[in-house]
Amino acid sequence: MRTRLTDLLGIETPIICGGMMRVGTADLAAAVSNAGGLGIMTALTQKTPEGLKAEIEKCQALTDKPFGVNITVGVVATQVDYGALVEVIVNSGVKIVETAGRSPEPFMPFFKAAGIKVIHKCVTVRHSLAAERLGVDVVSIDGFECAGHPGEQDVGGLVLFPAAAQALKIPVVASGGIADGRGLAAALALGCDGVNMGTRFMATQEAPIHQGIKDKIVEMDENQTQIIFRSYRNTARVYKNSVAMKVAEIEAAGGGFDEVHEYVSGSNQERAWTTGDIDAGMVTAGMSGAFVDDVPTCKELIERIVGDAERIISQRLAGMVGQS
Amino acid sequence: MRTRLTDLLGIETPIICGGMMRVGTADLAAAVSNAGGLGIMTALTQKTPEGLKAEIEKCQALTDKPFGVNITVGVVATQVDYGALVEVIVNSGVKIVETAGRSPEPFMPFFKAAGIKVIHKCVTVRHSLAAERLGVDVVSIDGFECAGHPGEQDVGGLVLFPAAAQALKIPVVASGGIADGRGLAAALALGCDGVNMGTRFMATQEAPIHQGIKDKIVEMDENQTQIIFRSYRNTARVYKNSVAMKVAEIEAAGGGFDEVHEYVSGSNQERAWTTGDIDAGMVTAGMSGAFVDDVPTCKELIERIVGDAERIISQRLAGMVGQS
Repeated sequence: MRTRLTDLLGIETPIICGGMMRVGTADLAAAVSNAGGLGIMTALTQKTPEGLKAEIEKCQALTDKPFGVNITVGVVATQVDYGALVEVIVNSGVKIVETAGRSPEPFMPFFKAAGIKVIHKCVTVRHSLAAERLGVDVVSIDGFECAGHPGEQDVGGLVLFPAAAQALKIPVVASGGIADGRGLAAALALGCDGVNMGTRFMATQEAPIHQGIKDKIVEMDENQTQIIFRSYRNTARVYKNSVAMKVAEIEAAGGGFDEVHEYVSGSNQERAWTTGDIDAGMVTAGMSGAFVDDVPTCKELIERIVGDAERIISQRLAGMVGQS
Repeated sequence: MRTRLTDLLGIETPIICGGMMRVGTADLAAAVSNAGGLGIMTALTQKTPEGLKAEIEKCQALTDKPFGVNITVGVVATQVDYGALVEVIVNSGVKIVETAGRSPEPFMPFFKAAGIKVIHKCVTVRHSLAAERLGVDVVSIDGFECAGHPGEQDVGGLVLFPAAAQALKIPVVASGGIADGRGLAAALALGCDGVNMGTRFMATQEAPIHQGIKDKIVEMDENQTQIIFRSYRNTARVYKNSVAMKVAEIEAAGGGFDEVHEYVSGSNQERAWTTGDIDAGMVTAGMSGAFVDDVPTCKELIERIVGDAERIISQRLAGMVGQS
């Protein structure tokens, strides 16, 4: 399957496994890239610039195909030395970077000088246009259904994807709510050039996640996520477990950030991830979990999605056209 | 364009203009049906059973094509004599009914005995399955982007449409967030058999709405709607004017139903509709207004949407398939 995105990035299928904290390791990124998609490692999953350098080298050893590195700049100040991470990326030979969070403006000259293609994640058309003006090569637009941070405008992908695609000249990647060939075909019909998936790739053989979490994603339906942190204008979509529901309850009762923070700190996110006890802490997951029904390899998954999308286009849709 | 929906209803294109209070008159319904879609009149827009009978006869005089009648049963008790309206519909020769609000169960035997096809509007997969078990012929599923009442689950069409389509055996109509050929092609890719549009048809020549309102819909972007009445679990999506923003403000401040009701009663919805002063009162509109850029005739609109969808399928999507 060929689109402007596959041409630009030199990949075989227009499917990206976006950067996910904890999950975006060299193993998963290489598996996605070897399967013809674009795997993306996350810089912040490594604790130091040296750790990131080693993880990139590991990924380069695992695949000859293009892969990307995600660098997410938080909206709150952190101790992270972004300059050092960018320096590692620029000197690593990596050719694709995914930026998220704050504007990538400070880093753009370094990426451009190194010939790195930049995919910037946005949640609004306005920010997408700003990113295009900055010179990013691709916008990955997150609709309301997405895991993590969908922003505060609550525009579903069905509307946000075509709105972004018609506003931008550069290729647009549809993100959030997509987990199968139907979603890929729909995103392409809406004017996008490819799709980004996170939750779907969490439930693959290669994802470095406890089987218990993968099983819970397989069991999800479309109502199994929860919006939290809305009252602090830092909205997040997470798996609807007891922790998320308690946070929502605190917020609904007018509880402040401190109260929520204290409660969340008392839960054990690390334990949820490492033991598969989904009620132990917050777990990020998107609505597309409704369409995750198994735990295939990345290769099986990508082949299936592309095959299904092609059949939808060549058989189902083509069969509806020109008849009356 | 041929789908299970066009076959079942005997229409030429899988495009429905769903029932809209005030807007669903014989003139608009006939214009949509004459253009090859399915126009739907609203029973409650007429004040009496006699008025409904006359409006149906008017529609029958204006078109030989199939059209439908919407009957919306409110979740709060009203003075409406639904039995009398159903009797008028059943005796009118109308062959298609769109039900909304409460379950259509009490009316199903009458519709079935008259050979009437029933399209039931739902906002969840669970209610869709219940409607299918009741014997409705089609489910029209409203995603979070829709005008009016999207329910309380906030599942965008990108996820809700395929979730409903895979759960149901009967044809599914995608509703909410769709206004053009991209949306039609995407809905069909997601497994639906057609689309329902409201906001898009409000901005047509034949819609019985003041030009000032049509102009405002043309100007909309994807952020120009407002969710209200969430705190009373009767969520509605309306045009984001000063009235809607004030209601949202009252709700955010913890204001009760009485306070909101008093404020809304003091605004003048009738004046908004009759004078085109969009700030005079509440005006229902969905996110798809982002894709409404003109005020064509229904015939021009339907031809354009079908033509665009067919080009997307036969050219854009077909061109992406089978290449690598």
